[in-house]
Amino acid sequence: MARLPMHLPQNGDAMVEFNRQIIQSTLPFSVSYKINTAFYEQYGPKGWSWMEETLQYLPKSVFRIADAKRGDIGNTSSMYARAFFEAMDFDAVTVAPYMGEDSLRPFLEFKDKWIICLALTSNPGHANFQLQEYQGQKLYERVIETVCKWGNPDNLMFVVGATRAEHVAAIRKQIPEHFLLVPGVGAQGGSLSDISHAGLNSDAGLLVNSSRGILYASSGEDFAEAAAAEAHKLQEEMALQLIQKKQHG
Amino acid sequence: MARLPMHLPQNGDAMVEFNRQIIQSTLPFSVSYKINTAFYEQYGPKGWSWMEETLQYLPKSVFRIADAKRGDIGNTSSMYARAFFEAMDFDAVTVAPYMGEDSLRPFLEFKDKWIICLALTSNPGHANFQLQEYQGQKLYERVIETVCKWGNPDNLMFVVGATRAEHVAAIRKQIPEHFLLVPGVGAQGGSLSDISHAGLNSDAGLLVNSSRGILYASSGEDFAEAAAAEAHKLQEEMALQLIQKKQHG
Repeated sequence: MARLPMHLPQNGDAMVEFNRQIIQSTLPFSVSYKINTAFYEQYGPKGWSWMEETLQYLPKSVFRIADAKRGDIGNTSSMYARAFFEAMDFDAVTVAPYMGEDSLRPFLEFKDKWIICLALTSNPGHANFQLQEYQGQKLYERVIETVCKWGNPDNLMFVVGATRAEHVAAIRKQIPEHFLLVPGVGAQGGSLSDISHAGLNSDAGLLVNSSRGILYASSGEDFAEAAAAEAHKLQEEMALQLIQKKQHG
Repeated sequence: MARLPMHLPQNGDAMVEFNRQIIQSTLPFSVSYKINTAFYEQYGPKGWSWMEETLQYLPKSVFRIADAKRGDIGNTSSMYARAFFEAMDFDAVTVAPYMGEDSLRPFLEFKDKWIICLALTSNPGHANFQLQEYQGQKLYERVIETVCKWGNPDNLMFVVGATRAEHVAAIRKQIPEHFLLVPGVGAQGGSLSDISHAGLNSDAGLLVNSSRGILYASSGEDFAEAAAAEAHKLQEEMALQLIQKKQHG
């Protein structure tokens, strides 16, 4: 709310209207939208209403992700799955793997829904545990290997941060078919070219996410146009990467 | 909602009233209450209102835990911390360690608030990653060792499931002072005696949680009395363990 354009009041209605205009202006250049639940939860029940309203503005033609990082014991994960797949109609939810199989299974039981499991994240803290090695295998590699036994490329993706492009090629080798959700391009400093070179497959295989770089492209009244321009730029860069991939394999 | 006593309607008001009566009847035997956010989130914004209402019935004399298993990149974790420590007045929130330091730090910046970090959980899936060994150190041990560098016994606890009492003695040796939140007693099959023997310290050092065993002690009109009886039983067992600990060290 504090980052809304200067001319807008800092309230929930303005935030939803901001979202609506961002969605409308960037829709021609986007295949997917990712809503970060924390930014709504901070406002309590009202915040959840604003998230629901925002979700209503997303057409079914785009892939709608709840970035919620959920994960708990089985009966509790079932409730989280209901929250995002039934109470709200998201297509996918991000999940945390620490609690293992029964924490992820309940999400996978929903037909035509996806989980996007944390593997190698884009934040500095990824080094604390995700890179820990056991007999030559890093924790995030073990997470990918293990979680792939519970899901398949049609209901399971992984979060792989753009800030660690050097690991992406190895991940693509490990899982040639799964889509990767790639945050960290833009504000967090990741390179689209590096990540594309390392991670594209014949279906594209990458959902590249830019959040702050697009949302806050301008703090003026032209915020929606500026966002569209940023999204368009990223879309054209991505199209170029896809063409190069097709030409050079 | 589906597990409410038979004579109550299955709606939000009944759920909050159920909670109110459970709290009122068990208060003499309890030091802490843990609200599982997923069970409210499944109902969307209304669910969050019911959670807020329930929280209002908890006096400040008890330790109020949001069992939310949150954790994300730094700027997002800050929002989750606001959600549970500011928008709602919980004393503590459970967090997931997978994303490392910047995912937990924002919670620790709140004065007189606590994080309860997942270490060794009570569910079957704990075996998938938490027990993975690196140079003789299991992942959950590394989590404890690492997270202890960011917090201290006055703002940091760990989740250690009662279903793995054989590991609790080692954890108590590793962290003599930190409190452990111990779920898994009751419905999940953990033994209070085993866990107390392994984990008590001179401040008690254990927050033993029973949820379903108390909430669903009876599905009749006597649900609150039955819950109180179960809570009383557990409190007396815990008191006995504490006395034995004092006598025998």
